[in-house]
Amino acid sequence: MITDSFPGVDATHDSTLQSWVLGANAPKTDFPIQNLPFGRFLGDDGTPCMCTAIGDDVLDLESVSKLGLLTGHAAEVLQVGTGGRLDRLMNQPRESLRALRVALSSMLDQRAGPSHSVQRCLRPQAVTKMLVPVAPSNFSDFFTSIHHASNSARISARLPLLHANFHYLPVAYHGRASSVVVSGTQLQRPYVQYLPHQDAAPIYGPTSRLDFECELGALVGQGTEIGDRLTLEQARHRVFGLTLLNDWSARDTQRWESTPLGPFLAKSFMTTLSPWIVTMEALAPFRTAAVARHADNRPLPHLDDEENQAWGGIDVQLSILMRTQRMREADTPPRCISRPNFKDQYWTVFQMLTHQTSNGCSVLPGDLLGTGTISGADETELGCLLELTEGGKRWVHVGAEKRHWLENGDEVILHARCEKPGYRSIGFGTCEGTVVAAERS
Amino acid sequence: MITDSFPGVDATHDSTLQSWVLGANAPKTDFPIQNLPFGRFLGDDGTPCMCTAIGDDVLDLESVSKLGLLTGHAAEVLQVGTGGRLDRLMNQPRESLRALRVALSSMLDQRAGPSHSVQRCLRPQAVTKMLVPVAPSNFSDFFTSIHHASNSARISARLPLLHANFHYLPVAYHGRASSVVVSGTQLQRPYVQYLPHQDAAPIYGPTSRLDFECELGALVGQGTEIGDRLTLEQARHRVFGLTLLNDWSARDTQRWESTPLGPFLAKSFMTTLSPWIVTMEALAPFRTAAVARHADNRPLPHLDDEENQAWGGIDVQLSILMRTQRMREADTPPRCISRPNFKDQYWTVFQMLTHQTSNGCSVLPGDLLGTGTISGADETELGCLLELTEGGKRWVHVGAEKRHWLENGDEVILHARCEKPGYRSIGFGTCEGTVVAAERS
Repeated sequence: MITDSFPGVDATHDSTLQSWVLGANAPKTDFPIQNLPFGRFLGDDGTPCMCTAIGDDVLDLESVSKLGLLTGHAAEVLQVGTGGRLDRLMNQPRESLRALRVALSSMLDQRAGPSHSVQRCLRPQAVTKMLVPVAPSNFSDFFTSIHHASNSARISARLPLLHANFHYLPVAYHGRASSVVVSGTQLQRPYVQYLPHQDAAPIYGPTSRLDFECELGALVGQGTEIGDRLTLEQARHRVFGLTLLNDWSARDTQRWESTPLGPFLAKSFMTTLSPWIVTMEALAPFRTAAVARHADNRPLPHLDDEENQAWGGIDVQLSILMRTQRMREADTPPRCISRPNFKDQYWTVFQMLTHQTSNGCSVLPGDLLGTGTISGADETELGCLLELTEGGKRWVHVGAEKRHWLENGDEVILHARCEKPGYRSIGFGTCEGTVVAAERS
Repeated sequence: MITDSFPGVDATHDSTLQSWVLGANAPKTDFPIQNLPFGRFLGDDGTPCMCTAIGDDVLDLESVSKLGLLTGHAAEVLQVGTGGRLDRLMNQPRESLRALRVALSSMLDQRAGPSHSVQRCLRPQAVTKMLVPVAPSNFSDFFTSIHHASNSARISARLPLLHANFHYLPVAYHGRASSVVVSGTQLQRPYVQYLPHQDAAPIYGPTSRLDFECELGALVGQGTEIGDRLTLEQARHRVFGLTLLNDWSARDTQRWESTPLGPFLAKSFMTTLSPWIVTMEALAPFRTAAVARHADNRPLPHLDDEENQAWGGIDVQLSILMRTQRMREADTPPRCISRPNFKDQYWTVFQMLTHQTSNGCSVLPGDLLGTGTISGADETELGCLLELTEGGKRWVHVGAEKRHWLENGDEVILHARCEKPGYRSIGFGTCEGTVVAAERS
């Protein structure tokens, strides 16, 4: 049943829709027929293959295309992405992506009944090796939580807590694209340079302040040329979807290296994405108002419009879980340590993309825009250990253990769900990584 | 005649070598037979083609490969790069690149005499459309001139003039790869957000403080995997070569946006490279000692070794020229406004690459490492207008005109030459761009 009708909600979001792939109808699945995210798996011949998730299965979209199981425009759109070129699929116009969603929804609809040919394109997620959904050509990481910004400044004894620019632009820095990996990749504790204590000479060794950052990643759909400046309205059509993102951070070197040009090696050793990109089409029912601002903190006109105020936010409930080595050995499940919500973010993903191109900088399909750490106002909603432990001054409890920073063997797991009365809940899958000891240099 | 024999100098550097391509023997050419840089041009069928420069000509290496004009290992190495995939060529081991250089040198040697087949692969540079030599997957921009670092801090009233980390690591930030372009590309004055004056509200409009930065770009040769940490010795084998780089900068937004994460849109609207990569093989005779350091400013061991101290520097004399619209209309040639030398840089390109990978960050063939602005101690050796005009407080004279910042119609031209008694001088070609007015938003 469709309970309201703001832009983008259509029959594919009908909560009564069920799939003949039975796992998709389980109440707790991340991947009901209303989701249909995109990802890539390692095909049997060793090449990347485009796919979607349905229940506990992966639907191999390369085979769907090869077997001609879609027709008309949807088939043409899908064809563009074959060979694992999800970036090319992402470069399609919005109406084409909608047509593909409608066709995939129909194909998996219970009312269509199981097709033997489509069934042959399914494989269990549990035995499928997923790849990074897109190897981004460019990665920008933003800083758009007002709570994270002011907490970080307070903990680092940086004044003012909010620099004057925070209200005027979504602050960001360029990240490292080459070390973006898929969920499940082990994180080797990085060697970094840092001051073991104030007034000491720096040393080079395994980081002593390893942290995670719970973020979402917005993927650019259609690209631009150098000199193009996207309006907010254009940006709304060019965000393809969202993925989970863990921006692993080494806080000791971050503090040491960042003057005067910002973080570099503190962030570039690895960035983990979930295997699935949840499309803006799937997220339509969960769009919400942007964070309300004081009248004297309105953005400049190019970063502000009514549509952004009314529907620029997205209600994504995130969960950060941890499991230590000891818990894993005792078969204790991961424990949730924090639950931020993306709707509290001060800047929207559309404002981020508009800002990114506001100087004429080009973007390519599949470029990654990290939202920055997602933290809410409450201490149960903080998005990184820096904030949860006040920079190592208080403990975070993980089951029977406690942490200031990540230890070897620790597993960090990000989850996210969108829920709204009258709609089927959808999820993002898992973004996880386990810390292993540094190799000796 | 070879006057000394440090690593890498061989018969291809013999200053008596001449080419049957007569332009290569002109005393002032950038491209004698001792140079043999790599680049890419737009082929007649619209695809990128690998090439080298010889005198006033381009030698089409795709045709050289297709026609089988090289034999043995050199032919295999060249074959890898066909289809304009200079990045794949760059990923070859050092010995293979040396073999290719030797073969190309022999092919063009006067003693070999002109070959009709090779002659058919030549085309005049003047009518050849060059492309960016490599579309870098990743671009890091360093900050390695001690003079630029302390001048910038003084001009921005930032204390201390040198942050404690400057002596310990080559400070850097991630740059934007998508907006790297080839020499000759017009620069549209970017729209940016900035404070028109202190205590004013920010505005969004064409930058009022447009600057250039004279840099070299080091291109990564063989890539690494996540977790690999390159020693200085390994890094010496993995720098493929150097190109000229103009890191155009908008100083007004740089000041406004950079707290707390460093420059972002101030630098990402465009970065210009020269069309030619001068290889480390060609640069061998011009290697020199790294800048001498005080005993208490030695780098940590992983960023320090004797070879780096003895031969880590490279003597590259740069020239920054400008030509205004009025000069162009009057057919007045460009005027040199500054002449920095890369041998004064505090950190070497090998230290930059070692640092880049010191946290296990992966690098890909063709990744670009900007050296940061190259400035010497003298006021005739400053690498950007910020320094030359003390932040807009004094004039730079360009012929009969004067500038604080770049104006529309201004052309900025970077040149570089390596000269040493007993050796043939080599050059880098041209890295130039002309500023045009911003398009209305």
